[in-house]
Amino acid sequence: MNAITTPRRGFSPTEFETRVERARQIMHRHKFDALLVSSPPNVRYFTGFDSQFWESPTRPWFVVVPLDGDPVAVIPEIGAPEMALTWMKDIRTWQAPNPEDDGISLLKSTIEGLPRKYGRVGTEMGREMALRMPVSDFLKLRDTLSLEIADGSPCIWEIRMVKTPAEIEHIHYICQIASDAYEALPASITVGESEREIVRKLRIDIARRGADSTPFMPAISGPGGVPQIVCGPHDRLVQEGDVLFIDTGSTFDGYFCDFDRNYAIGNISDDAKRVHDALWLATEAGIKAAVPGAKTDDVFRAMAKIIEEAGAIGNNVGRLGHGLGMQLTEPPSHRLGDGTVIVENMVLTIEPGMEYAPGKMIVHEENIAITKDGPRLLTKRAPREMPIIR
Amino acid sequence: MNAITTPRRGFSPTEFETRVERARQIMHRHKFDALLVSSPPNVRYFTGFDSQFWESPTRPWFVVVPLDGDPVAVIPEIGAPEMALTWMKDIRTWQAPNPEDDGISLLKSTIEGLPRKYGRVGTEMGREMALRMPVSDFLKLRDTLSLEIADGSPCIWEIRMVKTPAEIEHIHYICQIASDAYEALPASITVGESEREIVRKLRIDIARRGADSTPFMPAISGPGGVPQIVCGPHDRLVQEGDVLFIDTGSTFDGYFCDFDRNYAIGNISDDAKRVHDALWLATEAGIKAAVPGAKTDDVFRAMAKIIEEAGAIGNNVGRLGHGLGMQLTEPPSHRLGDGTVIVENMVLTIEPGMEYAPGKMIVHEENIAITKDGPRLLTKRAPREMPIIR
Repeated sequence: MNAITTPRRGFSPTEFETRVERARQIMHRHKFDALLVSSPPNVRYFTGFDSQFWESPTRPWFVVVPLDGDPVAVIPEIGAPEMALTWMKDIRTWQAPNPEDDGISLLKSTIEGLPRKYGRVGTEMGREMALRMPVSDFLKLRDTLSLEIADGSPCIWEIRMVKTPAEIEHIHYICQIASDAYEALPASITVGESEREIVRKLRIDIARRGADSTPFMPAISGPGGVPQIVCGPHDRLVQEGDVLFIDTGSTFDGYFCDFDRNYAIGNISDDAKRVHDALWLATEAGIKAAVPGAKTDDVFRAMAKIIEEAGAIGNNVGRLGHGLGMQLTEPPSHRLGDGTVIVENMVLTIEPGMEYAPGKMIVHEENIAITKDGPRLLTKRAPREMPIIR
Repeated sequence: MNAITTPRRGFSPTEFETRVERARQIMHRHKFDALLVSSPPNVRYFTGFDSQFWESPTRPWFVVVPLDGDPVAVIPEIGAPEMALTWMKDIRTWQAPNPEDDGISLLKSTIEGLPRKYGRVGTEMGREMALRMPVSDFLKLRDTLSLEIADGSPCIWEIRMVKTPAEIEHIHYICQIASDAYEALPASITVGESEREIVRKLRIDIARRGADSTPFMPAISGPGGVPQIVCGPHDRLVQEGDVLFIDTGSTFDGYFCDFDRNYAIGNISDDAKRVHDALWLATEAGIKAAVPGAKTDDVFRAMAKIIEEAGAIGNNVGRLGHGLGMQLTEPPSHRLGDGTVIVENMVLTIEPGMEYAPGKMIVHEENIAITKDGPRLLTKRAPREMPIIR
């Protein structure tokens, strides 16, 4: 159903070698002998291991990326046959679940056996990350290891914030699928349908068009705007005069899109139209500002100026866009004080939003990749006027 | 499409009061002044707060359940309008993301302000749990708090392992939806289709029948059995002689089913038929053994005996079933040494599986609730012979 070609699933061994080689250069600067990762996107980033089994929190999984030598997967036996299909050569397993020692002694001996230069291991301790293991086990490991465990998040984000061309093509593809589904939606829904049924239709259509999953699809409707943008759908029936807001993080082969669309249910107020137009222009300004060398603060300012002039009374989102990739949201943030310098091959959302009257928010969002010549739109740009549902 | 009635979404304030009251009795025994929770199922269990926004790891969310006084939500401002729709009365917010202090000082003052009896706070430090916050922030909180932070996992699992009738009806409903979809599947697929396309069809059908989401649907096929059961689908085309294994954790209103089905692609080997039948009988035995007062070890033994007699050479799963509820997998585990006493209103999977030749596994699974009179099947029992796809 899409004009663009489906990207090849997975990535070549060369891609993983390149990722690890670049990671090592960054690790050197951060003075780490190894990175230890446990969360799904980080495990997948370095190994290519794909599974929906992360839904089961029973067993921890680990990957150690040393400065010197092959990356090592330290994983439950249940995952060994599939890990063996990836580029990974060094796979060490234990019989899990084993509450007395769920991989910790095997992980410890793996790390202790690495060459040492800095005496430090970086792990997922900091911002926008969480360890996917019991923290009791983490503390036990930290307290008995002869190397220091330090916050590796800034290092890992430095690695993952800049995408490879193959990663960008994955994100582009899922953005195109969701764009087409958003565009087709008005033809299949009517006034008086529930938010929940509308979401069900859109979920099914996105699956049909080739998405693997839709972990994120909040939807909410309200007269002239909505009170929040991260929960729903509810059983509310959409009514004349409503703005219907739908956002989605759908995935293809492990990569997310993250952008919303707004629909007018019949005739909406002039105020809602005016604010929608201001936000469309703010999006234009945000995209234009996202050039190599600019800071996230600059992107924020370009949008904030238009939003303020349009009469914003608030915005509970706390920022105007963010990074995107194997997670729905990643660093950086378009907010004052973030200070991230934008570079080629970042993928960002541009997400201006505002509350213009109590309980009435409108939020726009597009996804872009940064090229050396400037921003490249990955989504199909939202129409300047809201599509009308009758 | 289902004979059974859709359960009412959400739970009454009385249900939450009962949950908290029961939690307090258990907390007393564990000597906690409060529980601090941060992960989606625990936050939802105590508050009823429903969101797909957990996909964004940028902002932490906290709920404090004190021995004495109302539960407190300490959450990013972006979630306040929706939290206000729940039964929660005490909602405290901060403007997130704020990397310098993402809720930690607000959380600290909230905990410090509670009445004290034991001087201890229990949190998600132990088995089958992970803190959903940067561990650096957790350590900062722990090191500056005037109360001890201890492992609250055994306490939290004691609370959540026993379900309320309303929770069981939720799980029953999603089990029925998935059962019907599994039953209908052979009519819509054929030999030569890819695992990936088959999964797409089943995902869409489950959504149509009323599931909210399908976070877990591994599928794999192989001659007479499969090498693993947690990854896939791949692009492999199913062929004459294959066993096609599909598992699903789909959800309704926050509650999971978790059970698989096996399909014969045309004629399968006699060995595969024999092992499939042995596992069907092992499932019967496992269900029968799951009575109040029995231990999970007993349930394991009842199944293991039949599996061994059938000639098992291995099982990389490490157990023969587990708890089920707001997570795809929860304690307890049917394995030797688990030692959990089965009580009324637990919800369990019965999951015998075996490798009968190298790379050839077959695994069965059903979901049950424990009543005072014994096990109650929540799924529609798998047919004794594999359905055949031609």
